[in-house]
Amino acid sequence: MSKPSYREAILDAGLRVMFRTGYEGATVRDICAAAGAPFGSFTNHFGTKEAFVKEVLDRYFANLQKTVRAALEDKAISPRQRLKRYLENITEVLAKDQWSRGCLIGDLSIEATGESEFLRQRLIAIFKEWLDPFAECIAEAQLAGEVDAGFDPMDLAEFLLSSWEGAILRMKVERGPAALERFQRIVFQTIFKEKK
Amino acid sequence: MSKPSYREAILDAGLRVMFRTGYEGATVRDICAAAGAPFGSFTNHFGTKEAFVKEVLDRYFANLQKTVRAALEDKAISPRQRLKRYLENITEVLAKDQWSRGCLIGDLSIEATGESEFLRQRLIAIFKEWLDPFAECIAEAQLAGEVDAGFDPMDLAEFLLSSWEGAILRMKVERGPAALERFQRIVFQTIFKEKK
Repeated sequence: MSKPSYREAILDAGLRVMFRTGYEGATVRDICAAAGAPFGSFTNHFGTKEAFVKEVLDRYFANLQKTVRAALEDKAISPRQRLKRYLENITEVLAKDQWSRGCLIGDLSIEATGESEFLRQRLIAIFKEWLDPFAECIAEAQLAGEVDAGFDPMDLAEFLLSSWEGAILRMKVERGPAALERFQRIVFQTIFKEKK
Repeated sequence: MSKPSYREAILDAGLRVMFRTGYEGATVRDICAAAGAPFGSFTNHFGTKEAFVKEVLDRYFANLQKTVRAALEDKAISPRQRLKRYLENITEVLAKDQWSRGCLIGDLSIEATGESEFLRQRLIAIFKEWLDPFAECIAEAQLAGEVDAGFDPMDLAEFLLSSWEGAILRMKVERGPAALERFQRIVFQTIFKEKK
């Protein structure tokens, strides 16, 4: 019988521990303890902490992209409604942890970009991939005359996702949904206002 | 001759080291080394790391409030222009570090709120104090008919400062001013559009 692989358990634990203690605070020792894995298996599977965090981030982002697609590819609703749906779905996810954990992409943007050029480059690539379907959806809403076409769709996508990260940051301080709800209310009555 | 106090040097070093390595990454040992101070003087002056970080944060915020007042109390320009001035002034400050360091309030909102209830409570109080003069300035702009009065001034102040933190987060990934400039351009043509 072959030895069990701790790879998945360590990756899962890595996300949980990083959400609690941050990138710098999450030690390999803590992550292995949370995974119930021997210390040595971390090095065997991942080598460095940086390479490990990149893998946790990639898994997180692959999962987030499912939420993006579920909202933005639902042609049963209008493009503007799809943007709303995405923010509503993320709000539901954040509610599950009582507003105590944020977004790993936002967390690492703040915490890891000064320390790791490797992770900063990965985040640049992730933001690009994350933004593209939003820019597309916004362009579609503009073309349909649903929202104002005065701005470049990619600029609006950047504005939407960056500002949303700011709302999540504020949510973490308050441990409540007020900032998320306020953001959605204001943004969909102004920048993404429905054109009559 | 009395021994020199390392208090100020340690506080200055604390801010520099935290900007580089984050809240969790900034060890007392590193901070003392950066300050050229003996390890023991940290404990003598501050007791715990949490108490020390609160003091660094309070000094940072007191300094930020000078920037707030310089912009928002300048009655020579209109209230809407004062809001613009604030974001322009912060942009200049962030340029000095080549867009590599963010805002300590935003950083600690992401990094410290899960770990320290003490710092989370301090951040709640700081946000309130930070927001009040913005809400006042926005109310003044609405009363003067300079910007739309459809939203509560405090909601708009919350939206402005949270979303601005999101733009700073994005700036940290890109190491460039694009997100800050985009934010200002969009927000002052939409939510804070000048009423004709």
